[in-house]
Amino acid sequence: MTNVKIVEVGARDGLQNEKTPLSVDDKLALITGLMAANLVYIEVGSCVSPKWVPQMAGSTKVFSKLPKQSKTQLSLLTPNLRGLQDALAVGCKDVAVFTAATDSFTQHNINCTIDESLARFADIIALAKDHDVRVRGYVSCMVDCPYEGAVSPSQVAHVARRLYDLGCDEISLGETIGTATPNRVKLAWQACLDELDKHVLAGHFHNTYGMAIANVYASLEQGIRIFDSSVSGLGGCPYAKGASGNVATEDLHYLLTGMGFQTGIDIDQLMKVSQMISKKLNRDNGSLFTKARLAQCTSA
Amino acid sequence: MTNVKIVEVGARDGLQNEKTPLSVDDKLALITGLMAANLVYIEVGSCVSPKWVPQMAGSTKVFSKLPKQSKTQLSLLTPNLRGLQDALAVGCKDVAVFTAATDSFTQHNINCTIDESLARFADIIALAKDHDVRVRGYVSCMVDCPYEGAVSPSQVAHVARRLYDLGCDEISLGETIGTATPNRVKLAWQACLDELDKHVLAGHFHNTYGMAIANVYASLEQGIRIFDSSVSGLGGCPYAKGASGNVATEDLHYLLTGMGFQTGIDIDQLMKVSQMISKKLNRDNGSLFTKARLAQCTSA
Repeated sequence: MTNVKIVEVGARDGLQNEKTPLSVDDKLALITGLMAANLVYIEVGSCVSPKWVPQMAGSTKVFSKLPKQSKTQLSLLTPNLRGLQDALAVGCKDVAVFTAATDSFTQHNINCTIDESLARFADIIALAKDHDVRVRGYVSCMVDCPYEGAVSPSQVAHVARRLYDLGCDEISLGETIGTATPNRVKLAWQACLDELDKHVLAGHFHNTYGMAIANVYASLEQGIRIFDSSVSGLGGCPYAKGASGNVATEDLHYLLTGMGFQTGIDIDQLMKVSQMISKKLNRDNGSLFTKARLAQCTSA
Repeated sequence: MTNVKIVEVGARDGLQNEKTPLSVDDKLALITGLMAANLVYIEVGSCVSPKWVPQMAGSTKVFSKLPKQSKTQLSLLTPNLRGLQDALAVGCKDVAVFTAATDSFTQHNINCTIDESLARFADIIALAKDHDVRVRGYVSCMVDCPYEGAVSPSQVAHVARRLYDLGCDEISLGETIGTATPNRVKLAWQACLDELDKHVLAGHFHNTYGMAIANVYASLEQGIRIFDSSVSGLGGCPYAKGASGNVATEDLHYLLTGMGFQTGIDIDQLMKVSQMISKKLNRDNGSLFTKARLAQCTSA
């Protein structure tokens, strides 16, 4: 039995792709619920202007109101120095920056080239290190880009390597538009594993086309042991509105425990959170695991 | 590029687990739509008393009204001699019988032991062979049984082998309750591949817990090249009412073509059938592929 690290990104990547913005109190209920389910790594929100991402308004307020406990790592996304300063001001010790494997994607998403994004990160990471803050780097488009199509594995590995060399402690590769099949995910990992140790690499899979669990499985076969997920499969795909979001944390937990890995998650508590947030957002629960379990309970 | 054979079971395994029974005309519209999407192997229905399975009423009528074309194999499920005679009477050249890997399941499902079910099949298969009719054998519970829990791979392989020895041309192993993870599916295949050639084995996966595509992927890695699926992920799980059904044909097609296999399917036509049948049954479309593609079309 070995452990797999799950990074719960529902409160950030999930919510920022949901139509309905949540209040600070609703976000607190979501995240304290996730903590009660024994999730250890939780992304709380994003230090970005609410003009750009209204769903992320109040993220530092949410962070400051959350109970701090030594077993839990609460993180904030910090796209720029101002964002990092806001995160530092509320005592955040884990932050994340994000770029992509193609210039077209960074231009559309953060209005700069990959090189320019990395130049910004140098300052952010330096300040973070001064404050003993851990930095995670996201790379979008690990297999496909919505603007350029297929992305070469070597390009993905190159950007991941540069983030590592800049001082990122962990690099999360995002299968952003959910179009990848497991064979192509494996090629991306092979290139990255030539450059970096598997322990600094995380897989972030979207379930847009229903491939996410298979892509996680293929990643496990390659030795990857860190995965991002969202309770209830929160979120969506800005390139296919109405489509599924991140791989659901419950489904990921089911795959992992079925394969003999340990996650530490209290799955009954997590299903409660899953149902609560789905109702709050007035959306269908995106976890097939949770739906099947609830169906069993009502059909005996 | 190699081909994978897809057996479309939506009109049988799908519909028999849907609440809403369809008329003969609705079934004809479904199946001719599937034929127009270039599906070659289509299960039309089941020759079983409508007292037992009301959704399958009129199956031979549907069969007799369908256009016959040399490129398409239309099959009927024939649980007993009477059923086979009904199938022969409408000129059916492909039939299927079904048993399971556990006695508890066959007792609940077909009211006999595994041995008793195989004894019945001997007569059915003999009569079928007299008429040059091809016989497929289903084995439920390839990994888990709803009554007995985990099923030993050797027991699954043993039943599959016996069906083959009785004269079945193809054996479809059913992951009936959708609880298996890919590692356990692999163990079942390993045992079966010790007994039988991969070309006579088919995988039939339910998506109850969201594992179906990963289980197909693991099966492909083991060399399996025949899979059952239902357009729009029709069906459900009698052991978890409201849960997802068979792996969706569209999602299976997406996985396969992404991996370089050919299916021959006209995916645009298949999506039309998928939307049509989901509306008719007043259910959410169970194919994430179709949902994502339709979302793209409406969000540009």
